[in-house]
Parts: sequence; structure tokens; C-alpha cells
Amino acid sequence: MNLETEIVGGLTAARDAACRLALAGTAQKNDALAHLARALRDSTAVLLAANATDVAAARAAGEGGAFVERLTLNPDRIAAMARGVEEVAALPDPVGETIANWTRPNGLAIAQVRVPLGVIAIVYESRPNVTIDAGVLCLKAGDAVVLRGGREALATNAALARLLADALARAGLDPAAVMFIGSPDREAIQIIKRHPDLIDLIIPRGGNALKAALHGSAVPLLPHFDGICHTYVDRAANLPMAEEICFNAKCSRPSVCNAMETMLVHRAIAPAFLPAIALRFAAAGVELRGDAPARAFIPDARPATDADWDAEYLELILAIKVVDSLDEAIAFIARHGSGLADAIVTDDPAAAERFQREVDSATVYVNASTRFTDGFEFGFGAETGISTNRLHARGPMGLRELTTYKYVIRGDGQVRR
Amino acid sequence: MNLETEIVGGLTAARDAACRLALAGTAQKNDALAHLARALRDSTAVLLAANATDVAAARAAGEGGAFVERLTLNPDRIAAMARGVEEVAALPDPVGETIANWTRPNGLAIAQVRVPLGVIAIVYESRPNVTIDAGVLCLKAGDAVVLRGGREALATNAALARLLADALARAGLDPAAVMFIGSPDREAIQIIKRHPDLIDLIIPRGGNALKAALHGSAVPLLPHFDGICHTYVDRAANLPMAEEICFNAKCSRPSVCNAMETMLVHRAIAPAFLPAIALRFAAAGVELRGDAPARAFIPDARPATDADWDAEYLELILAIKVVDSLDEAIAFIARHGSGLADAIVTDDPAAAERFQREVDSATVYVNASTRFTDGFEFGFGAETGISTNRLHARGPMGLRELTTYKYVIRGDGQVRR
Repeated sequence: MNLETEIVGGLTAARDAACRLALAGTAQKNDALAHLARALRDSTAVLLAANATDVAAARAAGEGGAFVERLTLNPDRIAAMARGVEEVAALPDPVGETIANWTRPNGLAIAQVRVPLGVIAIVYESRPNVTIDAGVLCLKAGDAVVLRGGREALATNAALARLLADALARAGLDPAAVMFIGSPDREAIQIIKRHPDLIDLIIPRGGNALKAALHGSAVPLLPHFDGICHTYVDRAANLPMAEEICFNAKCSRPSVCNAMETMLVHRAIAPAFLPAIALRFAAAGVELRGDAPARAFIPDARPATDADWDAEYLELILAIKVVDSLDEAIAFIARHGSGLADAIVTDDPAAAERFQREVDSATVYVNASTRFTDGFEFGFGAETGISTNRLHARGPMGLRELTTYKYVIRGDGQVRR
Repeated sequence: MNLETEIVGGLTAARDAACRLALAGTAQKNDALAHLARALRDSTAVLLAANATDVAAARAAGEGGAFVERLTLNPDRIAAMARGVEEVAALPDPVGETIANWTRPNGLAIAQVRVPLGVIAIVYESRPNVTIDAGVLCLKAGDAVVLRGGREALATNAALARLLADALARAGLDPAAVMFIGSPDREAIQIIKRHPDLIDLIIPRGGNALKAALHGSAVPLLPHFDGICHTYVDRAANLPMAEEICFNAKCSRPSVCNAMETMLVHRAIAPAFLPAIALRFAAAGVELRGDAPARAFIPDARPATDADWDAEYLELILAIKVVDSLDEAIAFIARHGSGLADAIVTDDPAAAERFQREVDSATVYVNASTRFTDGFEFGFGAETGISTNRLHARGPMGLRELTTYKYVIRGDGQVRR
């Protein structure tokens, strides 16, 4: 059987399973999640063994630090996945929620009711926790899920997807609602993107190679691509707070999309702020690249080029620019930001308000780290991705973002005049 | 200047205008709408003259009844447009609305706030009222709008778009937020679909030619395509009510997407229902096409072919099928419906509930005509289209469907552990 036939067969079964899953009750879906959480904990050794194969292969292929860090499972990460599953089980079921209802003057009673989206494909790269995070959110939202992970995590993802399908079956649900694409063939992505009849949405989680592979998709995409995040340290910033926030935003996990890539510093506080934080960044191994005014206070910084303002490093590199005003900071972010997460540190309420109103990003922070742009941190239990799109969903995506709605209208014989 | 340069120039100005319009207050936007409503009434003669040119050209080109009917303006339709503008002005401004807010255990206060989508292109065919309906909804939602109407309505649309831009200018807003594409060149659509950098969303309103022209768009689409609507007359239907609803759904305006194309009738009530309504349809000039059981009660009906069950007639033609059960009706609609509007007529609450739960269409009616699937009828003041999509918006689109949201998060120094 060729790959297209195999994949289309799986998708067709997933589409059928989705129709039934859409009508499943909350208790049955939560039962599947409870089975899964237990299975994750009971299967820790099996999962670590599968993951060790993937990690060894990645190291042998010469993959670098951030890549292997994303790929690696450990007992803590597995336990966190299981807790995430239980958190999702505890969340309200979005399906059936009445979003709005009203009665028209002619007596028609209109209700806008949340329903599952249908079949969602998640196409992701090295982080295997996505298999579980995305899988359980789709399941709880009543959607079938198609999982296509990176080939470097194939053994880990296959083991995780097996647990997910088993959990569905144990709860009396159709395991075809979880379709794992086990072929490492790149053609698989080309096949799924040709099938808007069988897939309602593709959520890509990865870098530029994935972006290129999905170009021209006939299935709608909810992209999760660049994260070029800024922190602006205002003239009215509490400097010790600014230092903690900037250090956290850059260093706590530099390989992820919500890490800070560019720090903007108001000229008035640059002399007091930059030398101290530069020492701290240097001690943490961060390479600093500054404009001329920034380098006046950080002699070891390399000169920043135009390319630095548009770079997503995903590494311990930071671009630093001195600005003359809040306006300049807002304009700079509009031009160079990716619209994912940007922060201001300030004690000036007017500056905070203007920044939050005028910066048009999915998540806009006052006095907090951009690293909080994450479904777990938002209280969504898990996440299927962080949308950098403006349509359908924006920012961290939880359960509601995996649904659509329909209008149900009750009349007593109304006709249109 | 070539067409691409001209259009990209207009789009760039629209993008800039959108950034400013996004920050405009409700009063200023409503002021523009008030100017527009007045201008529509004051310009009735000018608009009718422009429209007469278009209608004469369409007639000379041999266009048929439904087409000319859609194209034609009259004083009532202009007055209805002006009232629609005032209704939109009276609606709450969606921008700035707090959709949800909550505080995390770490003290972060998260608010999900509605913001404009950006730049929206409306690509439409013959109905010129779309120029105003879509334009004012976009404006009120803080979006710039790109209007590309059908070439057959060029004079009418140009006159309407001029009023819209003038109204913005009178209210002190940038008229570049309304971009009218006056070139009849089909290449214009190819140009706009290549510019996701300048346009956030294309809302197409038209038939298969438009669908084909927009194929492969790099800009996301909110399609408004086929409307194959069903009415199922259940065994427990109130038959006089069913007759009124079915007659209205087919005959009140057969050229529109929410008109009924297929009538499903339960076998048990077919003998009592079909002969009477067939006479009424015949008197109204409706051509009936039935399956064999239906034709047993309607001798003049033509045999329906498989193609009839998937046809969007948009004319006085109706397909009729007799079904044995509610299940068969639901399964038939799942297979042949377009997911836009479907209705059941029944006095059985259990049947009504199952139909509304299991039929996965944007609007699902009990005891009312499918013709109510419309932004005006839903109380949205006007509409920019009726989405047959499952993502972002589904069914009639009002103001909220033209927005996105961002999260604004306030902390007091939180960093991620």
C-alpha cells in the first residue's frame, strides 16, 4: 500500500471517528484522560527507553544543545505530562457551551453553541510532549487528531500516541480518533496538506523548514512560527525588577519562542541599567549585540547589525537597543516584532496603558516576563500551540480554540417577509 | 502605473490607515456612520442613476432574472442600506471589549481583549448593497476595508464607496481605510491574493467563478460559497406550519444562499403533505423534482437524479425526497448539505433536539424558515457575509467576526521558574 493510500485511509477513519466523538459526553472523554494519565505514569520506563533511542540517534547525527534539550524526556517531564492530562480532565468541557443567546422581535430564539472543530492535524518538530498536550486537548474538545511529529522523535512519539489511542479504546471511544503518522517520509506532509475534505485545520509547531513544507496548503493553517519577543525597560522602570524580568525572559529557556530576543532600554536609565545586567548576562554566557549607545555602556558587546533586529536566535544571544521614548519603543516593536509576546517594565501607569493598547501582539505584558506566553501558564492545562495568526485564535491555544460553534434557532412557524 | 503598483500602493495606505483606525474611539467611528447614512439618503438620485447604467449594461449583455434582481437598486433598498448603517452605529463597539479575564495563582492578571483584525478585503459579485453593509461593519470594527465588487456593478459600487470614504473624511478619519478597486481587470483578484503582508482576510461573496479565481490564495479566506439548504418535514410536523415554512424557504427569494434547495418529507405524512404543497409550488412556478416515492404523490414532478441532491439551484426548482426516519434525514443532510442552514418542522421535542444536536450546520432551525440565516435577521445590523467555514467565524458574520483579540497581562515582577 502506498503512503497516500495509507494516510487517506487513516484520515477517513479519523473523520468518521470525529463525527462520533463530537457527540460523546464529558464523562466518557474524561474517563479516557484518566486512563491516559495512569498509563503515562505506569509506562515511564518504556517511554524513557524509546526516548533514549531517539536522543542517541540525534546525538550521533551531530545535533546541538537546544535541539537535544527539546527532544529529551525525563521522569519529571513525563510526570508533568500526566499532571497536564489531569488538569485538562478537570477543565470544563467546551462542547455544548452556550456562547450567547438572544430572542429576536419575531420570537426566534437564537443560541450560539460551541461544537468541536472536526479533525485537527498537529505537525510538530522535536518536542515529544506535544503528542500528549495536543492529543488530550483535541480529545477533550471532541476533535479527532492527526499527529505528525519530527522524525528525530519517532520512537518517543509512537510510544506516546499508542498510550493515547489505548486510553480512548479503554473508555469505549474509537481509537481511530487518534491517527499517528509513523512514516518518516517528508511526503506525508504533502499528502495531508492536500486534503481539506478530511482535515479541518493544521497546527504547525516548528521552524522555517516546516513553514516551507506547508507552503500552499489547501488545509487552513494556524501558524506558530517566529517568536521575536521584546522587553522594553521604560525610563520609569523599577530597575531591580527589570533586571529579573529581562534575565528570566532571555535565560530561563532560550530555545523557546517566548524567550526575549531584543531588549529595548530607555536612554535615561541606560547608564544605571545596562552595565549591571550586562555583567549578569555575561556570567550566564549570553552573547550581547548592541547599537552604539548600548555599547557605550557594554564595552564587550558586539555591534548589532540590521539583521539582529529581525533575528529569532533561540540561543543565548541578545540584541540590545537604546531608545529615546515610549513611542520609539512601540514603533520599533511594530516594525521588528513577530506579534507574539512583548513586555514593558515601568511604574508609570500611563506608559503601561499606552504600551498595552498600542502594541498589537498576541500577548502584551506589563512588569512580567514574556516567558509566560504558554498554555500551561495561562491556565489552559496544556496547549496545542501558540498562534501567531490573527484569525480564529491568537496566542496560547487551549480547548476553546479547538472548537467552532453553530447557531441553533427555535421558532414556532416564523417565515421571512 | 501598472495595476499591481496601483493596488499595492492602495493596500499599503489602507494598512497604515488601519493602524490608526484601530485606535479610534467609538464616537468618532459612529460620527462617520451618521454622515454616511445621511449621504445615502441625500444621494438617492445619484445612486439610482449610476445603478441604471449598470442594469442597462447587464440587460444588454443578456443577463437573466436572478442576476438583474440582485444588481438592481431602488429607493427602498437604498433606504434599507441607510437604516442598516444606523443600526450598526447603534450596536456596541466590539473593540476594547473584555472577552474574559482571570488572575493566575502567581498574581498575573490576564485579560483577553477584543481588537480589530486589520485589513479585510471583500470580493463580491452583483449585489451592490454589500459595498455599504461590509464597509460599515469593517469600519465599526476598526478594520480597513478593500472593496472589490463585480464588474457589472462597477458604477453603483464606485458611487457607494465614494460616500463611504467621504464619510470617514468628514469624521476626521483617514479615507484610505476604504480602498475601492475600480479596475474591472480580473488580474486585480490575483494581485490581492498574493499579499498576506497587506491583507489579513479575504471574504469572498459569490459563486464558483469567484471560488476558482481565489484558489490558492496566500491570504486566508472566509468562504461564503454553496448554500444547499434542507427542510425536513418530520412525521410529527404541524402540516400547515410546514407548508408555510417550506413555501417561504423556497419562494421568498430563490436566488439567495439560504433558500431551500431540497425538501425531505417523512414517509408517514407524505400522503397528507405532498399533494397540497405541490399545488402551491406549481402555482408559484416552482419546478419540482422528486424521487419515486415523492412522485407517487406529485405526478407532474420530474424524476430527480443524483445530481439534484447536490445542486444549488438558486432558482425556482426544488428537489423532494421521502425519507423513512429522522436518522435518514440527518444522514442525508450530512452527506448532501453544504452546512449552511437546515431546518426541521416537528412538534416532537425529542426529534427537534436530536436534529439540532446532530446536524452539523452553521444554522440549524426548528419550526422556522432557513431564510433567516442572515446578519440583519440575526440582529447584527448588517452582514459581511455568511461563512461556510468552520474556522474563525461560522454562519452570519457581524461585528465580532471582524475582530481578533489580544491578551494583556499585568504583573508586579513575575518571572517564570
